Amino acid sequence: MQQVDVIVREVGLRDGLQIHPVFMPTETKLAWIQAEAAAGVSEIEVTSYVPAKVVPQFIDAEAVTLEALKITGLKVSALIPNYRGAERGIELGAQKLNFVMSVSQTHNLKNVRREREESLADFVRIAQLVREQPEARRPILVGGLATAFGCSYEGRVPVADVVKYAVAFAEAGAQEIVVPDTVGYADPQQVRTVFKAVMDAVGPIPVAAHFHDTRGIGLANVTAALDCGVRRFDASLAGMGGCPFAPGATGNIVMDDLCFMLESMGLKTGVDLAQLLAIREMVRQALPDIEMHGALARAGLPKHFEKPGRRQLESELV
Amino acid sequence: MQQVDVIVREVGLRDGLQIHPVFMPTETKLAWIQAEAAAGVSEIEVTSYVPAKVVPQFIDAEAVTLEALKITGLKVSALIPNYRGAERGIELGAQKLNFVMSVSQTHNLKNVRREREESLADFVRIAQLVREQPEARRPILVGGLATAFGCSYEGRVPVADVVKYAVAFAEAGAQEIVVPDTVGYADPQQVRTVFKAVMDAVGPIPVAAHFHDTRGIGLANVTAALDCGVRRFDASLAGMGGCPFAPGATGNIVMDDLCFMLESMGLKTGVDLAQLLAIREMVRQALPDIEMHGALARAGLPKHFEKPGRRQLESELV
Repeated sequence: MQQVDVIVREVGLRDGLQIHPVFMPTETKLAWIQAEAAAGVSEIEVTSYVPAKVVPQFIDAEAVTLEALKITGLKVSALIPNYRGAERGIELGAQKLNFVMSVSQTHNLKNVRREREESLADFVRIAQLVREQPEARRPILVGGLATAFGCSYEGRVPVADVVKYAVAFAEAGAQEIVVPDTVGYADPQQVRTVFKAVMDAVGPIPVAAHFHDTRGIGLANVTAALDCGVRRFDASLAGMGGCPFAPGATGNIVMDDLCFMLESMGLKTGVDLAQLLAIREMVRQALPDIEMHGALARAGLPKHFEKPGRRQLESELV
Repeated sequence: MQQVDVIVREVGLRDGLQIHPVFMPTETKLAWIQAEAAAGVSEIEVTSYVPAKVVPQFIDAEAVTLEALKITGLKVSALIPNYRGAERGIELGAQKLNFVMSVSQTHNLKNVRREREESLADFVRIAQLVREQPEARRPILVGGLATAFGCSYEGRVPVADVVKYAVAFAEAGAQEIVVPDTVGYADPQQVRTVFKAVMDAVGPIPVAAHFHDTRGIGLANVTAALDCGVRRFDASLAGMGGCPFAPGATGNIVMDDLCFMLESMGLKTGVDLAQLLAIREMVRQALPDIEMHGALARAGLPKHFEKPGRRQLESELV
């Protein structure tokens, strides 16, 4: 596989679709996954192992996982809200399981109906279950800290709490930590503070960023996270997400714009930008009502973008 | 006047309106200027001293300037493309004159029909004219380096050329340098390279950033410029600008989102965000067809934004 500087993970099939009221046909999901893998996206969160009665969009989680696993070179990742989700993921052979709990107690209660300490206990059990798997089928276990930058119920979330649960994940056996700005409250200064604190606390474990672009500063937050040494970012094609019941809400940072920014900076993502932009149309045809964002899709690539001189800055990267 | 950490200059009345085909009535322009001044915007580029036959939008440059000058505490700034523009500005009593030339030779020829060296010679004459004015009526002279981050005709623009003209401006007597990303090509890494080079070269003269958000990374570029110590930014309300003949083009970075990001980071702008958002409606009523952008206007301020705890990061600013 191509050497990349930054791993950009597509989460649109999970985070983008989970609140969309219209079911995306399984074959469209798979076509999207296949096209992105062909465009060079190396990791995709393909679904969520939540009960289908809670989120009907993921009623096809099994089929999507099994088909995605047939794609060579793609790391198939999925969200797990609890122990049962981990069992399903392991059974299916998902290569990466993203456990999510909220640092905000109120949000965790609303989201997964558990106290934070119960969620953490769940994670410890999941980590044990993962360790028990034969090496060839052992997924990478990721600990996600939702509402790390603030919560619409509680407002500010103390950095010390974020660090506390990051360390607890690491001690339990997380192989990656994800720090999400669930409701789009983060600013670049806060990003620096939180990521520095978490990265200092968890040592060599990779720490990934998951930003939403609710207030337009998602890519500014990426810039700040890059400064801290973060090299893994979640994003969704066309910034899909948003919430049909909250007109102002927007989705994840726009995958296409993120990849463009990184490539412009001389940071290789392995993603073909033209191919990526073309996939937007496929998704639009399947879900004409889904809200799509993205400045690159509107403005196009700059002239001369591919010319070698454009990359002069690469060697200057800190 | 209130102490601010970052000076945010409104350029929508010039950069936003200059390519809009519909004339904005003079009284609307003035209402916009007055409302922004009341919201705490300390500096506004109110017009451009170009011939009205070239840009009919600025046929009311005199009236706008004279009325704006009546507003207490507002620094009235205007664009000048040449010596004649400087004469008009000085005559009217504008407090700041923004001379613009392009670092790209081709762009300068197309934009002001001059060789770069002719433009520079113009600037030297203007600086002399400014020095000859009695102190009370002497405007601040700003040297602007259009296409500093790339040009749609020439592609890459060498950093050495940007530095060369920045130094020439400084030596001629510029009291501020503006470095604009005229066509929205800049990325955060390039921003760091160019601003560091320019700031090192011109010494204590303030260097301002003027970004367009064509490809969605305008605020990421602000973050990078802040890292370099830049504390002056141009922006336009609702990101007005764009070009009716280039559907993909967008305007300046969104003033409202910029102020929100800076305030979130604990950097005081002096601007009241709620008042600023309200001005969008006034402009929309006057020019219903103008394209407006902005995530804050869509999503609203975060809950708890005003709570004092939100500012905990201020002391941690580098």
